[in-house]
Amino acid sequence: MARKASLSGFPEWLPEERLVELHVLDTLRKTFELHGFSNIETRAVETVSHLLRKGDIDKEVYAVSRLQADDDGGRATSSDDGLALHYDLTVPFARYVVENSGHLAFPFRRYQIQKCWRGERPQDGRFREFTQADIDVVGDGVLPFRYDVELALVVVDALSALPIPDFTVRVNNRKLAEGFYRGIGLEDTAGVLRSIDKLEKIGAEKVTALLQTELGATDDQAVLALRLASIRTADVSFVDQVRALGVTHPLLEEGLNELEQVIAEASRRAPGRVVADLSIARGLDYYTGTVYETVLNGHESLGSICSGGRYDSLATKGNRTFPGVGLSIGVTRLVSRILSQDFTAVSRQVPTAVLISLTDDSSWSAAQDIATSLRSRGISAEVAASAEKFGKQIKFADRRGIPFVWFTATDGTHEVKDIRTGAQEPADPDTWSPPAVDLVPTVLRAKPAAG
Amino acid sequence: MARKASLSGFPEWLPEERLVELHVLDTLRKTFELHGFSNIETRAVETVSHLLRKGDIDKEVYAVSRLQADDDGGRATSSDDGLALHYDLTVPFARYVVENSGHLAFPFRRYQIQKCWRGERPQDGRFREFTQADIDVVGDGVLPFRYDVELALVVVDALSALPIPDFTVRVNNRKLAEGFYRGIGLEDTAGVLRSIDKLEKIGAEKVTALLQTELGATDDQAVLALRLASIRTADVSFVDQVRALGVTHPLLEEGLNELEQVIAEASRRAPGRVVADLSIARGLDYYTGTVYETVLNGHESLGSICSGGRYDSLATKGNRTFPGVGLSIGVTRLVSRILSQDFTAVSRQVPTAVLISLTDDSSWSAAQDIATSLRSRGISAEVAASAEKFGKQIKFADRRGIPFVWFTATDGTHEVKDIRTGAQEPADPDTWSPPAVDLVPTVLRAKPAAG
Repeated sequence: MARKASLSGFPEWLPEERLVELHVLDTLRKTFELHGFSNIETRAVETVSHLLRKGDIDKEVYAVSRLQADDDGGRATSSDDGLALHYDLTVPFARYVVENSGHLAFPFRRYQIQKCWRGERPQDGRFREFTQADIDVVGDGVLPFRYDVELALVVVDALSALPIPDFTVRVNNRKLAEGFYRGIGLEDTAGVLRSIDKLEKIGAEKVTALLQTELGATDDQAVLALRLASIRTADVSFVDQVRALGVTHPLLEEGLNELEQVIAEASRRAPGRVVADLSIARGLDYYTGTVYETVLNGHESLGSICSGGRYDSLATKGNRTFPGVGLSIGVTRLVSRILSQDFTAVSRQVPTAVLISLTDDSSWSAAQDIATSLRSRGISAEVAASAEKFGKQIKFADRRGIPFVWFTATDGTHEVKDIRTGAQEPADPDTWSPPAVDLVPTVLRAKPAAG
Repeated sequence: MARKASLSGFPEWLPEERLVELHVLDTLRKTFELHGFSNIETRAVETVSHLLRKGDIDKEVYAVSRLQADDDGGRATSSDDGLALHYDLTVPFARYVVENSGHLAFPFRRYQIQKCWRGERPQDGRFREFTQADIDVVGDGVLPFRYDVELALVVVDALSALPIPDFTVRVNNRKLAEGFYRGIGLEDTAGVLRSIDKLEKIGAEKVTALLQTELGATDDQAVLALRLASIRTADVSFVDQVRALGVTHPLLEEGLNELEQVIAEASRRAPGRVVADLSIARGLDYYTGTVYETVLNGHESLGSICSGGRYDSLATKGNRTFPGVGLSIGVTRLVSRILSQDFTAVSRQVPTAVLISLTDDSSWSAAQDIATSLRSRGISAEVAASAEKFGKQIKFADRRGIPFVWFTATDGTHEVKDIRTGAQEPADPDTWSPPAVDLVPTVLRAKPAAG
């Protein structure tokens, strides 16, 4: 991560960095599958009209067109139905569900790990090409609320397995917020949410002014809206704190009850990792109930590493509605931070565990036999390309990070040298194995720095 | 594969089809790593000028531009340095090697599995978005010829592990062909190769005419060029057949010797799977020695599923040259054929092995405890969302393809039912496992159709 991407916003990793990314991807995949999520991929492009249906974000979209197409039909614009790269995995997934609804068993649990593209200005943790790992459960007509609880548990499981610092999943509920605002007489709930969303950026005083000037809130209304946003608890005590504000509304009650279910279960299973945070407004425009966002503790400025929520209607097809709840993990954001902060150590850079050395140039084929035998038992092996002096062959292994070198004597006996220690021992191609710790490159959580 | 892609040329798989693709990708990854190849990924976009450097293929390239960029700077054309999606993995890899040469240990063995995009007309086995799996070995200055032999062995290993019919890797050598043509007095060797490349399409008679009219070949020269192209042997006997034509040239000798090395080793290790085929002209424009292409036996019309060759210079940096040899497997082409021909059977559609049923709605949290215990031992489990009648919960599992349902009685005892057989037995959350065959969905080679 000392290297700069040669194209700003399009990071590329060195092989040993890619090992860390693969470890993250493999860990997420394994966790999602243990929780019963099936994998799919969608194409990289969507029609522009489908991408822009969800809101005013066209500034960030990369259009795609054939380089030599006729000029009138070549470039996609928002007025025709050209193609563009997807900017997230939710919009393509909604289309996929509608197109394939006859072939899917609902509730459909899927995970999807793919690249996304946004033409934004690159910043720390914000890229133009980045990998997202999404999980969603989608129902046909109905989807029990329990999936909102379950998905919080799944991401806690997934993030806990990664080589990252501790994290906090912050949960809110749009019904709670909206019901509260209505309960105090503020009907433009979306406007209030937009103002509250600026709390961290501009502070309470300026948000109060916004609420008063733009939404016509009274002093009392502004104070109550800000008090609600200040509530943050690691257990279900937020319920009493909200009640203490003396506001009542049926939607508020529904939201309180839903959020209480999430926090009650999560605080029991993952104490301190899932908190009720009533300031979370992000994405509330799109979501209709539960909303999640997640920060790495001590790295809050990185932004959310895992966000999502409940949609009453992820997609519709005729009079069928597909409600959903899901979360999206920012893999590239996480991996870039893991690499820049050295959260991990990689045991070696190459998959190869053993280099089969050559005694003379005619022994290459016999060396391939040894390598084949090792590979059949899951041991990664490569064969030297030429019979240089043994010292040179050992140096070759050392330079590439291969821990063992195999020697075959002219009498047909074999020995293996651990070139890190110099220890050399007799070996049989049909039975020798490296110590388990040396079988494949491993990615270890680095010891946290003191202090 | 009965379904049509909603956007022509951009295939998307159902979850059970994706299991087949994942099986192919996992198998390739495992094989490549056993042979000591490291994984990298490159960004999806390259500058247009870099992409077009390699030849006249700009008609196939998808340009990328910000949808709302100013009109003068928005669309990438070949005259500015806009961005475009890569159409293969070799061109991006060459750039990556040059940019990171100071951080890589040579010879650098890498595999790369990513999507590519081409704006071609979609056909059977030809897509606009498709996944390639590439392996290359790249040297710094020099790269021993033995890697040309080794790479043939690696792809034989990789393809043999896939659920596909038998295949044939056809190998030729540009030095052999070029030396032969020079030896018979045809100096425009690239022109001869272009004509020979049309052999399968237009037949020997028309190729003869082409050689005579366009390249000024005599009758004898045309006959000899066609005789060379007709040589195809599963062992090294091609050497004698070429020698019998009575042509001599130093480059021909060098090519004969190289191709003999590949075929000698490969015919010993994988009899019949690697053949010398002196008609292979494909890609000879780009390659400088060995060339490979691969067909599925009985599916030759699908085109090559794995092609590549030797470059004397994959890339250059100042006065440094990076020679390479590599092959590219057409994953999407293979997977689409596997699916359309039912080469495989999938044991189930979802990762979930066990559904934990609910006795009553308050038992959801206890059911999560059971699921957690199973998952900690690698068993995929999900919990029912509501305490419907057991019959309904069993139907839910059946509809989703989950083989086992877990029941907890009010006295705290547990039983597991195999809903395929109806067999039910006592079970302990801390020790129960499904039979090994039911642990995860498996992809099996289907029995070949008789005939």
